[in-house]
Amino acid sequence: MTQSDLHPRGVFSAALTPLNADLSPDHATFLAHCRHLLGEGCDGIAMLGTTGEANSFSLKERQALLEAVVAGGIDPARLLPGTGVAAFTETVDLTRHALSVGVTTVVMLPPFYYKGVSDDGVVAAYSEVVERIADPRLRIVLYHIPQVSAVPISHGVIAQLRQRYPTTFTGIKDSSGDLANMVTMVERFPGFAVLAGADPLLLPLLKAGGAGCITATSNLVARDLAFIAKHFADPAQAEAVEAAQARVVATRNRVSRFAQMASLKALMARASQSDGWMRMRPPLLPLSAEELAAL
Amino acid sequence: MTQSDLHPRGVFSAALTPLNADLSPDHATFLAHCRHLLGEGCDGIAMLGTTGEANSFSLKERQALLEAVVAGGIDPARLLPGTGVAAFTETVDLTRHALSVGVTTVVMLPPFYYKGVSDDGVVAAYSEVVERIADPRLRIVLYHIPQVSAVPISHGVIAQLRQRYPTTFTGIKDSSGDLANMVTMVERFPGFAVLAGADPLLLPLLKAGGAGCITATSNLVARDLAFIAKHFADPAQAEAVEAAQARVVATRNRVSRFAQMASLKALMARASQSDGWMRMRPPLLPLSAEELAAL
Repeated sequence: MTQSDLHPRGVFSAALTPLNADLSPDHATFLAHCRHLLGEGCDGIAMLGTTGEANSFSLKERQALLEAVVAGGIDPARLLPGTGVAAFTETVDLTRHALSVGVTTVVMLPPFYYKGVSDDGVVAAYSEVVERIADPRLRIVLYHIPQVSAVPISHGVIAQLRQRYPTTFTGIKDSSGDLANMVTMVERFPGFAVLAGADPLLLPLLKAGGAGCITATSNLVARDLAFIAKHFADPAQAEAVEAAQARVVATRNRVSRFAQMASLKALMARASQSDGWMRMRPPLLPLSAEELAAL
Repeated sequence: MTQSDLHPRGVFSAALTPLNADLSPDHATFLAHCRHLLGEGCDGIAMLGTTGEANSFSLKERQALLEAVVAGGIDPARLLPGTGVAAFTETVDLTRHALSVGVTTVVMLPPFYYKGVSDDGVVAAYSEVVERIADPRLRIVLYHIPQVSAVPISHGVIAQLRQRYPTTFTGIKDSSGDLANMVTMVERFPGFAVLAGADPLLLPLLKAGGAGCITATSNLVARDLAFIAKHFADPAQAEAVEAAQARVVATRNRVSRFAQMASLKALMARASQSDGWMRMRPPLLPLSAEELAAL
């Protein structure tokens, strides 16, 4: 992350969360994974997002995991935890807590229980959070993932929030998979960091002026993504960039045959030779034996 | 509620939640509303549901409101609070808390953040809750509201849960508006309480063997619904039942022209001459001045 302007830029891993046998987050393994991802070249860790199963954890579990990572020596400036939940008062609690441990940029879902809500309603919810926290350090990356949240972040919402709180809303993670939407936001909102939520879109989005990515496959291919982000504009590296992109696309295709998060966890378990990575919180489940064999 | 078999039966109001100026729940006004609803003939109060904006409140706010109602003298056997949230560990916390104040029946959403989850995943989530609480007093009413939760409760889920925990899962609130689905469940699951989530469906569902309703318009027409539930099978009251049904349908139609919950709150504000009822938690918003005038 370029700290000069506090806009997120580069490759952020939507880190998977390893679980203990009682399905609680495994702090030590997660910390080691964060160190590994940064060592591979990630600019930061977007922990406790959709891929991290965050909305299957309690507030206390989320706060404890974040504290463990910071206590373990990860620079909080490298952490972009997810803090958006269904109740804005709890989004306030989680965001205040993140600020209290030194984090300044959070990735924030809109309230996602009620559906068909108006743009004004979404803006009102984000505004309550900003006003109640009232901390000029706070930077928010909006989170557009309509296929899961079922509450999209429209361009109208972005425009209103940037107008009300120009230094607070610094970017958006777009997990819709719609590159055209990302490029339109790059063009319409100068200085706003547009981050791809799908690994194969990092390269085309960077070429179109995007800021980077927050992605799931990065748990496995962080080095390739970091290489792409560093060299995408260098003609001398064009071939190596295309080769890295091909590996990213191949891995992404591999984990998309079955449930993506379960597949990523299965591959993490194999790479680390630790079955603990396989566990998932209901309602999500690990791959079946048949799926595992096919993977 | 018939306490002999602990299956919910009758009319339960999905109570609206009045808010203070800071958008916190107004305990005193809510308590008075609960007393009023029971006085009108409701068998119980399904507080902290979708209509009650529960998923826009923090766990602490939910627990405090439930404690205030019990402290105010409402019999906890008459309360069916909603306790299902996105993280099963918090569903456990809320449900344990409800049991701790004397409530035994809760209405429980499935975990609703992740979409496209399997029946096995939904069953696993409910099973974690039941196993971790491990309290034989616990009774759970499943909550099927696919247009909001986007996670349906299939008949397969019901069958599995009834088989695993025959005394725990006593019924379902079906807010899909699909009467055929409700009647099918009545036929397929003997002894299972099927409760309509839409006021106009109480009468046809009772005639088909259903157990009652948990509905929103009941905030305004509880007396009519209670009359229907008491007399629907009495030929001597057929005309009065039809008249009550006509009033229920008319009120429901009236509040369905604009956003239903905002419309209900607006009519509550008018009836009680208290503007406090108008307030809503973002992302939901009160009616606009134009809508209010048209209502």
